[in-house]
Amino acid sequence: MAQQIGLDIPLAISSLRNAYAQGTLTPIHVVKTILTALEKRGDDGIWIYTTPGDSLMDRAMALADMSASQRSQLPLWGIPFSIKDCIDVAGQPTSAGCPGFTYTAEHTNPAVQKLLDAGAILIGKTNLDQFATGLVGVRTGYRVPHNAFSPDYVPGGSSSGAALSVAAGLVSFAMGTDTGGSGRVPAGYNNVVGLKPTKGLLSTRHMVAACRTLDCLSVFALTAMDAEQVFQVAQGFDQEDPYARLDQGGTGPLKTYAPGQSFRFGVPRSDQRAFFGNTAVQAQYAQAIKTLMGLGGTCVDIDYEPFLEANELLFHGPWVAERYASVGEFVEKEPNSVFPVVRDIVLKAKTLTAADAFAGLYSLERLKRLVHPIWDEIDCLVVPTTGTTYRLDDVAAAPLKRNSDMGYYTNFVNLLDLSAIAVPNEFQPNGIPTGITLIAPPHCEHYLVGLGDSFHRTKNTQLGATAFTLGET
Amino acid sequence: MAQQIGLDIPLAISSLRNAYAQGTLTPIHVVKTILTALEKRGDDGIWIYTTPGDSLMDRAMALADMSASQRSQLPLWGIPFSIKDCIDVAGQPTSAGCPGFTYTAEHTNPAVQKLLDAGAILIGKTNLDQFATGLVGVRTGYRVPHNAFSPDYVPGGSSSGAALSVAAGLVSFAMGTDTGGSGRVPAGYNNVVGLKPTKGLLSTRHMVAACRTLDCLSVFALTAMDAEQVFQVAQGFDQEDPYARLDQGGTGPLKTYAPGQSFRFGVPRSDQRAFFGNTAVQAQYAQAIKTLMGLGGTCVDIDYEPFLEANELLFHGPWVAERYASVGEFVEKEPNSVFPVVRDIVLKAKTLTAADAFAGLYSLERLKRLVHPIWDEIDCLVVPTTGTTYRLDDVAAAPLKRNSDMGYYTNFVNLLDLSAIAVPNEFQPNGIPTGITLIAPPHCEHYLVGLGDSFHRTKNTQLGATAFTLGET
Repeated sequence: MAQQIGLDIPLAISSLRNAYAQGTLTPIHVVKTILTALEKRGDDGIWIYTTPGDSLMDRAMALADMSASQRSQLPLWGIPFSIKDCIDVAGQPTSAGCPGFTYTAEHTNPAVQKLLDAGAILIGKTNLDQFATGLVGVRTGYRVPHNAFSPDYVPGGSSSGAALSVAAGLVSFAMGTDTGGSGRVPAGYNNVVGLKPTKGLLSTRHMVAACRTLDCLSVFALTAMDAEQVFQVAQGFDQEDPYARLDQGGTGPLKTYAPGQSFRFGVPRSDQRAFFGNTAVQAQYAQAIKTLMGLGGTCVDIDYEPFLEANELLFHGPWVAERYASVGEFVEKEPNSVFPVVRDIVLKAKTLTAADAFAGLYSLERLKRLVHPIWDEIDCLVVPTTGTTYRLDDVAAAPLKRNSDMGYYTNFVNLLDLSAIAVPNEFQPNGIPTGITLIAPPHCEHYLVGLGDSFHRTKNTQLGATAFTLGET
Repeated sequence: MAQQIGLDIPLAISSLRNAYAQGTLTPIHVVKTILTALEKRGDDGIWIYTTPGDSLMDRAMALADMSASQRSQLPLWGIPFSIKDCIDVAGQPTSAGCPGFTYTAEHTNPAVQKLLDAGAILIGKTNLDQFATGLVGVRTGYRVPHNAFSPDYVPGGSSSGAALSVAAGLVSFAMGTDTGGSGRVPAGYNNVVGLKPTKGLLSTRHMVAACRTLDCLSVFALTAMDAEQVFQVAQGFDQEDPYARLDQGGTGPLKTYAPGQSFRFGVPRSDQRAFFGNTAVQAQYAQAIKTLMGLGGTCVDIDYEPFLEANELLFHGPWVAERYASVGEFVEKEPNSVFPVVRDIVLKAKTLTAADAFAGLYSLERLKRLVHPIWDEIDCLVVPTTGTTYRLDDVAAAPLKRNSDMGYYTNFVNLLDLSAIAVPNEFQPNGIPTGITLIAPPHCEHYLVGLGDSFHRTKNTQLGATAFTLGET
């Protein structure tokens, strides 16, 4: 298990909060340590923009100056974080991974604003597949980031920098986005947790949309409990976001999971699983199923076919036209500024008609109805986060095919309006981590975090690529 | 007040049921009377297909042969009805108003099947604006129907024949459809009630779709209470209809209205009302507002702008592409079989891209959020069903403009996911009736029926164009 950085302070939120409470650390010390680490690392492909050091120090000092009473009202007091560079922060550049596209944001995304208001410290904005179009993490106009455990492997995307900033122990959490898996694939590839909440609970206003009807903000963290804390702070009905969900808390009582509680989890029928030749991930997924059964779970084989059909819809159906609606004008005007694979995807949308769009919507409704009864049989679906991991040269050789394979277990989730959490599983013999993802109906974040955390703790593993372990949190 | 036909039996459901209970009528007598009337009237433009006389007599005799116990289990035992000829009945032709399009249906629409199973007698299938594309009622490849009160005036559409079959006293109720007002405009024009339930409560499977994401089955009846009874029988979750609503009963308790109960009703600000020069309808709408205040209502001026923007979206936005998705292939293949105005509308959809479609969906979400808080201030919105009535030659002179004007108070309702009921108001000096429409959030049918019926009963008016009055029901 590689360890990428020697940051000597534990950044898991509970650990950091304890250190603050005990006075062994202050936000000033944390910020200084992070600034030193950033400088030492140089351009590692994680960051597109970092908050200037003096601003960061001012922020840390302002937080340090607060009274105990003020601090106690700020649930994320002194917690460092990053945001994916397709999300706006007023006064900072937003590039969406495309230097030529960069603009200075006038507004701050409301979910990010809640994090700042809660005392979190924004370290910077992270790299991504351009316009959040990809699951590979290397389709960027900036320095290409690599996996936290190997320079030869892709970090996963599109929230590559977000996951890496957490895995490297440079921040406690990162805000990413997730349309077809961008909040889960890079979590799995870099040994961190990725919580993709129910659509419409975190405001998607003031960001560069990928597919506006599907986009979610997502949370990367070292532990599931950390991810939930961030989610709880960031959520809140945004009156001005047309895609803010009206049923913010769902219609029933919150579903909960307590360790030892029995549960039913679905898995794709074995003939419907795909590992693309990777027997290590296959074996580790089988082991994860056993682990979950050991935790009190009953394993239920389900028909994965409707989920696969939804996957097909995402990239071969009309939703790609949302990408054109979002950034098409720029891509038309400056095609040479855009990463070629991304450009081709966005422009392909022009061939789709409005009738195609509605045909896609009809297909999706049909699939939603097919899937709906499954949730009477299981509490959650458990899949590998990805069926395999890829080297950078694998992806370069077949960028669309590899990308599509990486979404085999992720693409359908937002289309079908589900919530999900990606948690670490085992490391492969090649040193690259693998993960599993738990998927459930909307408003099941709390349940998924509880169960995901229990699973994660069976591993007592390294947190991301840091020097710390889960048992210490 | 004209009286179009001398059917000497009262067809309001409660009246007919009383007559059955008292033994003064039998289904056999009713069917014979209807058959005689149909023959006497000849082709009046109401019907596209009528059930053969001997089949109808067989049906009537089978019903008559039932025991009292069997009858008591059939809520619509012996009640005659019609359905709009875009809805399938197995073994019968479906034309959608276009002779060249006609096919013999293999299945029966599930909502219609429930009516048949409840003992209702299907008299036949009614005329419509071709492919349910229009609010005028005269865009048909069959004999052009006219208003129940004047051969010079349009009947309104697209469910023209449906409304007329009820107004003429030929059936107790009619099933129509409503996408942008087709279940309300012809109700207003012909002095009957039009209930447009919440989307997804009546199955829209096995019919020719207009806009599949918006289409509703609707009920035409002589009274609001009749319409509700039919709605209650026809509703039921259809597992195989992707647009069947999962929250069939809503999420809260059913909202009710009892006479005398106070209520708040919204009206468009006076500068946002449109009567297209018709001062009679304008005055009668003002009178309706007073009547509602007399019933205990508080009148609240609301900003009608977002509703007007939704209207614009319906015909100038991407939803027209759903019509192309439904019948475009036929229209492309046999353009000369199609009513020219309808053909042009359907083919225009080809110019719309998938990105346009999503842009329309985004606009709609924005409007939904603008409208949402209005329902905290009012129990229902009350509008004229139409701002004016038109002669056939008015419509011929400017078919698109007149059609659009007729939807001024109707087009937005399904886009914004609302329920509605059109009830009769007053007759104009020219003898043509006018109506008002009550509009509320989804799942408010019971409330709207209660309030609509109370309003209707302040008139003690003629039922449709029949010889009977509401006071007799």
